[in-house]
Amino acid sequence: MTITTLSTAYDQLITNTKETTLFGSTIGLLGWDQEVMMPKKGLEYRSDQIAMMARMYHEMSTDEKIGDWLSACEEDADLVGEQASVSATNIRELRHSYDRATKLPTELVEEEAVLSSKGQEAWKEARKNNDFSVFQPWLEKIVNLLQQKAECYGWADGGEPWDALAEDYEPGCTATSVSEVFTPLRKRLQSLLDEIMGSDTKPSNAFNEIALPIDQQQAFVRSIATQIGFDFNAGRLDESTHPFCGGTHCNDVRMTTRFHENNVNDAIGSTMHESGHGIYEQGLLFEHVGTPMGAAVSLGIHESQSRMWENQVGRSEAFWKWCYPTMGEYFGEVTANLSFDDVYGGANIVCPSFIRVEADEATYNMHIMIRFELERMMMKGDLAVADLPDAWNARYKEYLGVEVPDNTNGCLQDIHWSMVSMGYFPTYTLGNLYCAQFFEKAMEEIPDMYEQFALGEFGALKTWLNENIHQRGKQYRAAELCEVVTGKPLSADPLMRHLESKLRPLYGLS
Amino acid sequence: MTITTLSTAYDQLITNTKETTLFGSTIGLLGWDQEVMMPKKGLEYRSDQIAMMARMYHEMSTDEKIGDWLSACEEDADLVGEQASVSATNIRELRHSYDRATKLPTELVEEEAVLSSKGQEAWKEARKNNDFSVFQPWLEKIVNLLQQKAECYGWADGGEPWDALAEDYEPGCTATSVSEVFTPLRKRLQSLLDEIMGSDTKPSNAFNEIALPIDQQQAFVRSIATQIGFDFNAGRLDESTHPFCGGTHCNDVRMTTRFHENNVNDAIGSTMHESGHGIYEQGLLFEHVGTPMGAAVSLGIHESQSRMWENQVGRSEAFWKWCYPTMGEYFGEVTANLSFDDVYGGANIVCPSFIRVEADEATYNMHIMIRFELERMMMKGDLAVADLPDAWNARYKEYLGVEVPDNTNGCLQDIHWSMVSMGYFPTYTLGNLYCAQFFEKAMEEIPDMYEQFALGEFGALKTWLNENIHQRGKQYRAAELCEVVTGKPLSADPLMRHLESKLRPLYGLS
Repeated sequence: MTITTLSTAYDQLITNTKETTLFGSTIGLLGWDQEVMMPKKGLEYRSDQIAMMARMYHEMSTDEKIGDWLSACEEDADLVGEQASVSATNIRELRHSYDRATKLPTELVEEEAVLSSKGQEAWKEARKNNDFSVFQPWLEKIVNLLQQKAECYGWADGGEPWDALAEDYEPGCTATSVSEVFTPLRKRLQSLLDEIMGSDTKPSNAFNEIALPIDQQQAFVRSIATQIGFDFNAGRLDESTHPFCGGTHCNDVRMTTRFHENNVNDAIGSTMHESGHGIYEQGLLFEHVGTPMGAAVSLGIHESQSRMWENQVGRSEAFWKWCYPTMGEYFGEVTANLSFDDVYGGANIVCPSFIRVEADEATYNMHIMIRFELERMMMKGDLAVADLPDAWNARYKEYLGVEVPDNTNGCLQDIHWSMVSMGYFPTYTLGNLYCAQFFEKAMEEIPDMYEQFALGEFGALKTWLNENIHQRGKQYRAAELCEVVTGKPLSADPLMRHLESKLRPLYGLS
Repeated sequence: MTITTLSTAYDQLITNTKETTLFGSTIGLLGWDQEVMMPKKGLEYRSDQIAMMARMYHEMSTDEKIGDWLSACEEDADLVGEQASVSATNIRELRHSYDRATKLPTELVEEEAVLSSKGQEAWKEARKNNDFSVFQPWLEKIVNLLQQKAECYGWADGGEPWDALAEDYEPGCTATSVSEVFTPLRKRLQSLLDEIMGSDTKPSNAFNEIALPIDQQQAFVRSIATQIGFDFNAGRLDESTHPFCGGTHCNDVRMTTRFHENNVNDAIGSTMHESGHGIYEQGLLFEHVGTPMGAAVSLGIHESQSRMWENQVGRSEAFWKWCYPTMGEYFGEVTANLSFDDVYGGANIVCPSFIRVEADEATYNMHIMIRFELERMMMKGDLAVADLPDAWNARYKEYLGVEVPDNTNGCLQDIHWSMVSMGYFPTYTLGNLYCAQFFEKAMEEIPDMYEQFALGEFGALKTWLNENIHQRGKQYRAAELCEVVTGKPLSADPLMRHLESKLRPLYGLS
């Protein structure tokens, strides 16, 4: 009799999960390296390498043994009896991912991989030529495949196909629950935006008009990341075209940012944002690495952490009280003529536009709501792909008051759908909502938080996040975590209070 | 009937080999990342990751199917009939590595891994405290294990245990063949060194006494690597404590160098050296990637390439005729007072010492011979580990005329033996010997090579190396390749001619 046969199903399940994650983390590193370090001729071999590893990882994740161990564990009250215990959490979440991974027929998975590759090609071509008709047949195929995929996964009674897809990114989230928060948010945002656009008072844009050398920006944002608590002994900050946060585990977190000589605000925002993701990852417990108890809750909760450091902290008056006086150390005389108001105001300019990735903190959510409404309708069969451009443009006019000039700058601007992905977009706004609600709670428990920020002290907030969110791993699903931490269900109120209290004074509104 | 059962044993063998190498190349990237990029807290998880991947790689490399395919191929005259054909080469070398990988009992492999880890710990401790007795019992265990390992591998008639170990690094090489070249080399080197040390004329050391900012050195050595032909679209140059060349395949070669403010010669030498390794790797054919036809011959041949660019090119008068005038671009006024003789002479100072890694081009080989003689004797049982320090020190006195001050600076200076590795050292000097012999041949075929170097043109040499060495992969074993390329067996003559013709004028010897 070997040691393996003596150990319990739970021990075997956990050992296997840790090994599978250890293996899978290699793919994460290969991906990071490809974006950040790899010389360009390395692409072909790297693609083969990642494809091979992903295939092996999928095989490891769908091994029938896992199903057997899970069934044995699920019958053991000592393991699953106490909700949200370490074992109950691990078993619940491993069951969730195992069922997801085994529910799709192989043909559908393969078809999806091909469609994703061809869909992206068609999307690029359509964007380049501003010709939606090139992408339209592919998007039709994509919607069709996603509907089949949703059928395979299934959804709860009273739900709809979109729910089955969102489950990959935000487990437990439904279209109905999303629209219950999005609808009041939209109305209140729209009225705030109307007031802002109608005001004669506007913050100075001077901060966004000066050119600053890249190497000085690099040193500046690195010092900010260090100050807010990103641990450079357990992570790196590099550069890539599209900033992201990856790595292999809590002690090796790789984030990136980007620099433009004439847009230091973008570098600050990107760095604070990715540092928020990074601090979350670093805050997961090493003892649980490779298991659900050592993994992040969902994309929405992840985004709540990045947005908190980017917006609630990084665009606050208190943050700039600390940061503004340090700028001379990095930029010398060049920033000496900027006033505090130039800098703080410049980080908080609101301006509706038709491009999501350039949107400010307030209008950003409108872009998300539009995408959510449209993908939900397409999934239900209530919107034909052919009618997407008109529906898109009409909503931009209605929600943001902007005319979309063409499809390249309209419904072709995002890569997500071409990658056969729907259900992802709302996690951005859910992140903003969770973030505001968490931050209000933190402020309640640490009343002098802004005074601390003004002194460059961010440790109390970081510790609060570590204890209330990060160290819990996947113990609670997102909506539940929100209630456990803040005592209330998710609501649009905290985000609106946050935006109103900051933007009204800056725009001279009573 | 599936496609697999239709394909031939050779096709299956090659497909499998390519997949196994694709997988194994990931381990190479993980290792590079650990040395160059990884934050320090990442070590524990990374060690687990590499151990897991290495275990999987070993399983893939020793799969019994490989043995079956090889046996089938070896009976097919179409495949193996023509010596050095693509298929014959692949089959011969895959048989070699498969047999090596399957000859060792698992217990011995595991014992070796443990001993390597503990041996290195003891070695570090012994070095720190200058106390050989701490390492002695471990080195005794290591020698014992290596003797068992040699027994498992076996060696040819008339050979000895050392041969079985060298086979890992320099296939086909024996202690007898090494000493046949090393013995005349040592005698002639010793007499040249006697003359050099007795001369009153010495090159100026001024080049080695100036401090140059690291960022300027970085730009300088990068430009040199580019100029000699390292392709930065298919590779990188980074920094690490111990320079090395790794990567995943010919289109993604990762090399490192190091910098000291007051030793630009070290940075130049390291960069040229690693570029030589890198140019070899980049010169392997992508069509053969993952098979022996797309892999380097041996460590000795690899070293012949690094040494060629470091010494035959990088320490030549012709190279400095091009390089010296460019220095002002990088270092401004600081190098303006250096004469050509200061720079060229400073790159060629000969000075016997007791530290191998700081040795110059001429004395370096003496360090290697000492190690080779001692490890050969230990493997044969002709030298007890307890007597190693005395034997070491006596040889340093005899061959190099230096007194070794203590064991830390003596027989404890290198990490190799503590890693359970013997048979490796001679590849350094074999590299120098092959290098000199190849370079003489290249000069015969490109008579104006030095004139080209003086103009900063290195393409003719690189192309010659590509065609004569790199693109052949493992078609020939090292000794055979030497005969195919130069028409003669390996000899000490070309290396001695190279050293004499350069050093005699610099040291005022007739």
